[in-house]
Amino acid sequence: MTEKRIREVLGKVAAGRMTAPAAIRILRELPFEDLGFAKIDSHRSLRRGVPEVIFGEGKSAEQLSTIGQRVLASHTNLIITRLGADKARAVRRKLRGLKYHPDARIGTIVKERVKSSGHGVVMVLCAGTSDIPVAEEAALCAELFGNRVARVYDVGVAGIHRLTANLEAIRRASVLIVVAGMEGALPSVVAGLVDKPVIAVPTSVGYGASMGGLAALLGMLNSCAGGITVVNIDNGFGAALAATLINRVGIERDGR
Amino acid sequence: MTEKRIREVLGKVAAGRMTAPAAIRILRELPFEDLGFAKIDSHRSLRRGVPEVIFGEGKSAEQLSTIGQRVLASHTNLIITRLGADKARAVRRKLRGLKYHPDARIGTIVKERVKSSGHGVVMVLCAGTSDIPVAEEAALCAELFGNRVARVYDVGVAGIHRLTANLEAIRRASVLIVVAGMEGALPSVVAGLVDKPVIAVPTSVGYGASMGGLAALLGMLNSCAGGITVVNIDNGFGAALAATLINRVGIERDGR
Amino acid sequence: MTEKRIREVLGKVAAGRMTAPAAIRILRELPFEDLGFAKIDSHRSLRRGVPEVIFGEGKSAEQLSTIGQRVLASHTNLIITRLGADKARAVRRKLRGLKYHPDARIGTIVKERVKSSGHGVVMVLCAGTSDIPVAEEAALCAELFGNRVARVYDVGVAGIHRLTANLEAIRRASVLIVVAGMEGALPSVVAGLVDKPVIAVPTSVGYGASMGGLAALLGMLNSCAGGITVVNIDNGFGAALAATLINRVGIERDGR
Amino acid sequence: MTEKRIREVLGKVAAGRMTAPAAIRILRELPFEDLGFAKIDSHRSLRRGVPEVIFGEGKSAEQLSTIGQRVLASHTNLIITRLGADKARAVRRKLRGLKYHPDARIGTIVKERVKSSGHGVVMVLCAGTSDIPVAEEAALCAELFGNRVARVYDVGVAGIHRLTANLEAIRRASVLIVVAGMEGALPSVVAGLVDKPVIAVPTSVGYGASMGGLAALLGMLNSCAGGITVVNIDNGFGAALAATLINRVGIERDGR
Amino acid sequence: MTEKRIREVLGKVAAGRMTAPAAIRILRELPFEDLGFAKIDSHRSLRRGVPEVIFGEGKSAEQLSTIGQRVLASHTNLIITRLGADKARAVRRKLRGLKYHPDARIGTIVKERVKSSGHGVVMVLCAGTSDIPVAEEAALCAELFGNRVARVYDVGVAGIHRLTANLEAIRRASVLIVVAGMEGALPSVVAGLVDKPVIAVPTSVGYGASMGGLAALLGMLNSCAGGITVVNIDNGFGAALAATLINRVGIERDGR
Amino acid sequence: MTEKRIREVLGKVAAGRMTAPAAIRILRELPFEDLGFAKIDSHRSLRRGVPEVIFGEGKSAEQLSTIGQRVLASHTNLIITRLGADKARAVRRKLRGLKYHPDARIGTIVKERVKSSGHGVVMVLCAGTSDIPVAEEAALCAELFGNRVARVYDVGVAGIHRLTANLEAIRRASVLIVVAGMEGALPSVVAGLVDKPVIAVPTSVGYGASMGGLAALLGMLNSCAGGITVVNIDNGFGAALAATLINRVGIERDGR
Amino acid sequence: MTEKRIREVLGKVAAGRMTAPAAIRILRELPFEDLGFAKIDSHRSLRRGVPEVIFGEGKSAEQLSTIGQRVLASHTNLIITRLGADKARAVRRKLRGLKYHPDARIGTIVKERVKSSGHGVVMVLCAGTSDIPVAEEAALCAELFGNRVARVYDVGVAGIHRLTANLEAIRRASVLIVVAGMEGALPSVVAGLVDKPVIAVPTSVGYGASMGGLAALLGMLNSCAGGITVVNIDNGFGAALAATLINRVGIERDGR
Amino acid sequence: MTEKRIREVLGKVAAGRMTAPAAIRILRELPFEDLGFAKIDSHRSLRRGVPEVIFGEGKSAEQLSTIGQRVLASHTNLIITRLGADKARAVRRKLRGLKYHPDARIGTIVKERVKSSGHGVVMVLCAGTSDIPVAEEAALCAELFGNRVARVYDVGVAGIHRLTANLEAIRRASVLIVVAGMEGALPSVVAGLVDKPVIAVPTSVGYGASMGGLAALLGMLNSCAGGITVVNIDNGFGAALAATLINRVGIERDGR
Repeated sequence: MTEKRIREVLGKVAAGRMTAPAAIRILRELPFEDLGFAKIDSHRSLRRGVPEVIFGEGKSAEQLSTIGQRVLASHTNLIITRLGADKARAVRRKLRGLKYHPDARIGTIVKERVKSSGHGVVMVLCAGTSDIPVAEEAALCAELFGNRVARVYDVGVAGIHRLTANLEAIRRASVLIVVAGMEGALPSVVAGLVDKPVIAVPTSVGYGASMGGLAALLGMLNSCAGGITVVNIDNGFGAALAATLINRVGIERDGR
Repeated sequence: MTEKRIREVLGKVAAGRMTAPAAIRILRELPFEDLGFAKIDSHRSLRRGVPEVIFGEGKSAEQLSTIGQRVLASHTNLIITRLGADKARAVRRKLRGLKYHPDARIGTIVKERVKSSGHGVVMVLCAGTSDIPVAEEAALCAELFGNRVARVYDVGVAGIHRLTANLEAIRRASVLIVVAGMEGALPSVVAGLVDKPVIAVPTSVGYGASMGGLAALLGMLNSCAGGITVVNIDNGFGAALAATLINRVGIERDGR
Repeated sequence: MTEKRIREVLGKVAAGRMTAPAAIRILRELPFEDLGFAKIDSHRSLRRGVPEVIFGEGKSAEQLSTIGQRVLASHTNLIITRLGADKARAVRRKLRGLKYHPDARIGTIVKERVKSSGHGVVMVLCAGTSDIPVAEEAALCAELFGNRVARVYDVGVAGIHRLTANLEAIRRASVLIVVAGMEGALPSVVAGLVDKPVIAVPTSVGYGASMGGLAALLGMLNSCAGGITVVNIDNGFGAALAATLINRVGIERDGR
Repeated sequence: MTEKRIREVLGKVAAGRMTAPAAIRILRELPFEDLGFAKIDSHRSLRRGVPEVIFGEGKSAEQLSTIGQRVLASHTNLIITRLGADKARAVRRKLRGLKYHPDARIGTIVKERVKSSGHGVVMVLCAGTSDIPVAEEAALCAELFGNRVARVYDVGVAGIHRLTANLEAIRRASVLIVVAGMEGALPSVVAGLVDKPVIAVPTSVGYGASMGGLAALLGMLNSCAGGITVVNIDNGFGAALAATLINRVGIERDGR
Repeated sequence: MTEKRIREVLGKVAAGRMTAPAAIRILRELPFEDLGFAKIDSHRSLRRGVPEVIFGEGKSAEQLSTIGQRVLASHTNLIITRLGADKARAVRRKLRGLKYHPDARIGTIVKERVKSSGHGVVMVLCAGTSDIPVAEEAALCAELFGNRVARVYDVGVAGIHRLTANLEAIRRASVLIVVAGMEGALPSVVAGLVDKPVIAVPTSVGYGASMGGLAALLGMLNSCAGGITVVNIDNGFGAALAATLINRVGIERDGR
Repeated sequence: MTEKRIREVLGKVAAGRMTAPAAIRILRELPFEDLGFAKIDSHRSLRRGVPEVIFGEGKSAEQLSTIGQRVLASHTNLIITRLGADKARAVRRKLRGLKYHPDARIGTIVKERVKSSGHGVVMVLCAGTSDIPVAEEAALCAELFGNRVARVYDVGVAGIHRLTANLEAIRRASVLIVVAGMEGALPSVVAGLVDKPVIAVPTSVGYGASMGGLAALLGMLNSCAGGITVVNIDNGFGAALAATLINRVGIERDGR
Repeated sequence: MTEKRIREVLGKVAAGRMTAPAAIRILRELPFEDLGFAKIDSHRSLRRGVPEVIFGEGKSAEQLSTIGQRVLASHTNLIITRLGADKARAVRRKLRGLKYHPDARIGTIVKERVKSSGHGVVMVLCAGTSDIPVAEEAALCAELFGNRVARVYDVGVAGIHRLTANLEAIRRASVLIVVAGMEGALPSVVAGLVDKPVIAVPTSVGYGASMGGLAALLGMLNSCAGGITVVNIDNGFGAALAATLINRVGIERDGR
Repeated sequence: MTEKRIREVLGKVAAGRMTAPAAIRILRELPFEDLGFAKIDSHRSLRRGVPEVIFGEGKSAEQLSTIGQRVLASHTNLIITRLGADKARAVRRKLRGLKYHPDARIGTIVKERVKSSGHGVVMVLCAGTSDIPVAEEAALCAELFGNRVARVYDVGVAGIHRLTANLEAIRRASVLIVVAGMEGALPSVVAGLVDKPVIAVPTSVGYGASMGGLAALLGMLNSCAGGITVVNIDNGFGAALAATLINRVGIERDGR
């Protein structure tokens, strides 16, 4: 409990067993540990080897370069999502070594090799070719967050046999990220085949009454198949982060 | 059971008591027996000791009694959600032994004691007093699905000290179900305090521009705090099922 | 009848009993007598033995009685949809012989036995117990419109085996009416099993983000399974009428 | 093919060359090979001479070329919908022989001549000049699916006389596809003139409160004219597929 | 009256009975007396013999009685719209002489006989029996505002012949108020038959995707038939007021 | 023309040159020739000297040229609305003499001088500079439909004095078209100043929660100022047509 | 700055000038002071004499009684909003001394007299009689929060003279809360008359396209009149709290 | 000025140099000169040294130049918001001296130095880098309206420490403008830290279910943190104007 920790620190200071600067260092973190998601989030990143993730959309190449340099200066890996090919080129001029992944629209600078952890494999499935950018954002992020990742893409009209072909693997996965646009029915189908958590990612793929992914989102939220939870439309990154946390449930962090 | 039936058919073929064409005709239909999420779901229930869950809203007391008797006949536990107090009384006349949980609006007949499993505790938090029915639906379901469950309710304007007071427990939980109406900000706050999966449950609590829970749902889907996934408005049951699957990630099922 | 009136007028002109200008004045208005869909629709009813269908919601018992008496006076069968049990009792006091079908919320007076026609069976499926009123409205209407009708209800969580059990029958049907609420995925599943037209009927069954059936409606409209067309939420009657027309495609009407 | 594989397995079991448990392991997975709508759909295509249909929007020219080559390799006709003129040119470089239909925004390679089948003519009507791309997508697809097709376009402000001029033909059609934007009233008008199934296709033509076709969609769903069913906004392909199935109701497939 | 007050003040200033600063203080406020639409509206009412109109919904019987007494004290006619039968009874206890019109849900006390004015007849049409309350609100208000009014109701499925039967009258009308729910197509049909202004009134009659009248409203706004303008859902009163102003275009007011 | 054709048929029957059955066959189809609003609409145009109006958006330059030539061949004036400057240039190459009005985004060829008719002046007001294109579409159309038109533009933040300056003129107008975006309050203000019909035209001017003109549309529909009717967002043409019909109420057409 | 404060406290402890328990008391608040709105909010209440405010809707009489007793035990005033008359009676049985304000639907127990503070008067205006409950909630809350409050109600169709009559007072007010339903235009009008902050409160008063207050909300958000800010539909309490904070801008709190 | 004009007229009447009827004619129109919010708004601007603010979006460079010259001719400062860089260059050619602020997308010509007034500092906070344009529009406008302004930007994932670092300053501010997109939770967090009015500005930053800022807007409107009021999406200017009025509450204007 927080109070107990404060009492201990104060007790040590009062007893001369801890210097004020050392106590400050501990206490300075207290507010933040309790305060914001952001701060803790960034701390968590540092402690866990998860690279900083920057949302590239709506930021200029200059802004991304500046933020990127700040991230790299803190000796963590860099990952920029929603990064168009043109902007990636512009950012690369400033951030030497940036690797661009066109399918995932992600730019990365991996300074420290990512170690795999977690119970098992995070499997990413998607319904159609047009859903691949979102699926790949999820898959690449999940890898960079330290998961073993498997991909089963294009499990739609022409590719359902790939679902069957990978059925054993699908059932062995720890967590499933299922990406689909249009009516968004794939997560229901997959949830019916496995006893594992399914994170559904609606995409903006579709037209007319798909309303930019809203139909898929609503379909997934109303799914009568159990065990499905949903993230925002096109939010591959968010699905990857949730899958990472799920894949580590019951595993103690080092040094804690 | 499917496997048994396949075995029988194959046995007959091997024994020359059934021709291949006759076997084909039978086996060609088998896929459908195992096709739907629903069927598998109910199988999963049987194998795992998770009681049948019946959605009580929009079903008459007679319908619920009939379905309930069928469930009980299969020697599994019975759980009816969204069950109003009046309807519960009517159902109880037919289903002797039905226990009614008014806070959760759930009726249960537990024939076989539920054994706890999973990595750790599923913690259910809610923002306000009005969110309790949804939170309690989640908590009670999670218990009946075999999880140890902890509750931290009414963590809103007047109760944030309860959040702090339980901070250690919150951090020790395996999965968090966070229930909130209005602008639905509580999951973001909780996700900032822990490194565990957070399942956000928007409720229809609110008025005006809350639009029956839509504002809370949208807020949770757009949360910039990582690791949050979302279920349907007021869907405590769905959150409990997802939490159960998450709490068991990496744990092998018996007999598999 | 229009044709008869035209014939009379022409007869009078030919016989010199009516001047051309007088005939013009009469005939100029004739177009409108046959103008609207409604009128033609009611003519079609008379010619085809399809009973008048009255939408009971929002009409008082008195209004329904008056309309019903007018219908019966024209010696056609009477069918009132969306008729609550209480209102049915009140209507019955005026319309002796009204038969009430509580599952379908329909009241009927069948004066002339309905003859079956059409290529084959109209099959009505529904996902859950709560969808039955809409499914039964579709099934009963389809019967009263002269179709052979088969029902496969409650093909949801607990009943998918009924889908399998009836697979041969489903495949032999001429047209399928598939009724579902929540995420409305059942029509997609059924459309994948058959090569027959599927009429999807979203229902208002669900809660939260189902938004009164809108999620099911959107899911069905965005279905990637081919051959599905959709009617309004809860519109069992409309599905029955469309199925009737489809079931008669290629069959000539008598007397034409 | 599934049936062949089942036969092989059974043959081996009968011949004592495979044990029952080994056969079970293989057969247990078979369901999934025939599971999804997609797979069956593609099988159906092969058996019925309906060409593969690829949705071109959101796919790159390279992706389309690759998919196209796979389709052609299976000796079926190729049809790519929602294909812009520029992308068509790029695809043609890889897929020699691709014929581009600019009005329908469709690209085709017809390797095997399409034989006409079905009860009668599928008639496609549209309200205005701006609706033609959607109408033409429906008409061309219906032709490629093996229907005789008739077109009555621009039946709006300046062209209602074409509706009258074709009234006999309209009444003789088996199925009607009626395409309209703005308030989407044309299907109601047409449904009032005929006793045939009417498939209504709302288009995104309009402005302001038409909300990208939503007003037309809602108008069609709420039509009080009977026998109308609706597909997604701008979904000419879906209407064509539904019309094909309707046009074949009561006609037995060869070899079944 | 404003002008009279200005004259008095100026008279006093000219007569030296009021100083300029005192006059300024009075006159500075005058703008506001004539500022708002509301005030002018009520003045207009007095000058033109149009009775005060009170919106009864959401007001208690006591509030209505008090407001009504104030209106009657000013020697004008009283009209209360959206007045339920029960509330009408309660109001009548305080406002002796209140006449209740159940079809229109309107209560009136007509102290001064309403004189007819305007170019011609205001004709009110409605599509179905359920639309009558809105149509009758429009018709009764239009009468009380001094118009000759004609009614053509229930011009839907069973009653289109009444439209034809009244075609001459419809064409002779000065203004048409067309009331319809569901897809709201009637105004388009009527606008095609006449060269007169058509005021379309969507009603909340319908279900499912009619979304409380929104589909009808959108259909009317997107109508491709010219000359249609639209008022709020169920707003019979507003249509009557607009029709009154239209019916008087080009007619000079007395005393102006 | 319909009447002429009826006369011919009747003449032949009277003269014994046509049998009654043959005449019936012809006359039975007549309704449809006069059926649609569109047809009548175009007839009305011819009779009243209102030029054909073509909606230019979503039509190619070629389509517009072809339609335009057809219109000109019928010796009526031509008006193309929603015509961008670039497309206008392209159309002009085919349709010599096309005059482009950039403010109104309208192209016209006036072959026959438009004669003014109607009770008085149609006045067009708009709130801001950005609303001018819609206002000018209304004003120019109203002129081409034979009305005297007055304009009071930019009656917003910097220009309310123009409203005052033109108050006498505003009050003398017969009909008012009031164009406004954002919250759309101007029609309410204007309706408070006059006793004339006010046609409110919401525009898509605004941002954020204006939702493409929806906020203005809703504001106008819910206006508590009486006598306001509304057309579609940005629909200047529709407002002009309605204003024309209103301005002619009570005026007999020639030759009727 | 936080760190500075921590350093000071630690310095004092290290120097023996402060005991550990005293330091704990200070530091214990630090997390919370930075953490949640809720905690600080409740502290603010205590320090400033603002009574606890409990949202009564969706809470049972028992829950309200329990919470109320807890509040009263902390010797602060009690205010329960959204409290229906029936529930108020039930609560009063447990909470003796509860005073019920039916117009505002508020129950209060004022133990400590509220002292007025703030620059000037908070003026509450509303458009119609039906808006009074929301306006009165705002006014009563503002009084209980320590403001002098003035009311100008029913400033709609029949009451604009009350606006004029109170113009001087309106201009002298410090803050204006303007409550309106339907199109929500009143805040724009008021903002044009004063140079003071205007808090706009949309109400759910209206029908049809008012969509439960959404039209009023959108109108207020899109208002082109400057200085308007908006709260949730029907949120009188929120407006009162914001007005209180605004009325105290520049006034130092005691003991700070 | 209105008052001066009234005085002149009255002086003339008193002096016998003007007749009462002539004066009436002049005075009758006066109301309108002071009628609209706009006019008063512009007067207020002149009296208070607040520069004219022109909304640049949807206006051409020529229109902006013309309006700008008119503003400058009245010797007030000029501020054009929503001004793109390209358009700014075009405007500058006509309006020499225009200074362009790219971050705020604002162009200004400050002829008269702005004097600071108000109780204290207006502080502008924003959540992310992408929100800066809106935040900077608010900040720059607030400065130009005569406030001392402080900025705390990018208080999101990577920058929450800046919030803490500036906590003392934040608490000392008079008014807070809090700008955020996505789920819009920052205003709730800030409102929990201060006892000052918080103006929440939702931005269109986000994707998918953020629906162009609607999710943020709804979140802010439903915030359970007190004292928050909301302006339109991306409306930095409106927030600045409201903050200016709030910052001056209780301060008398000169010469009043």
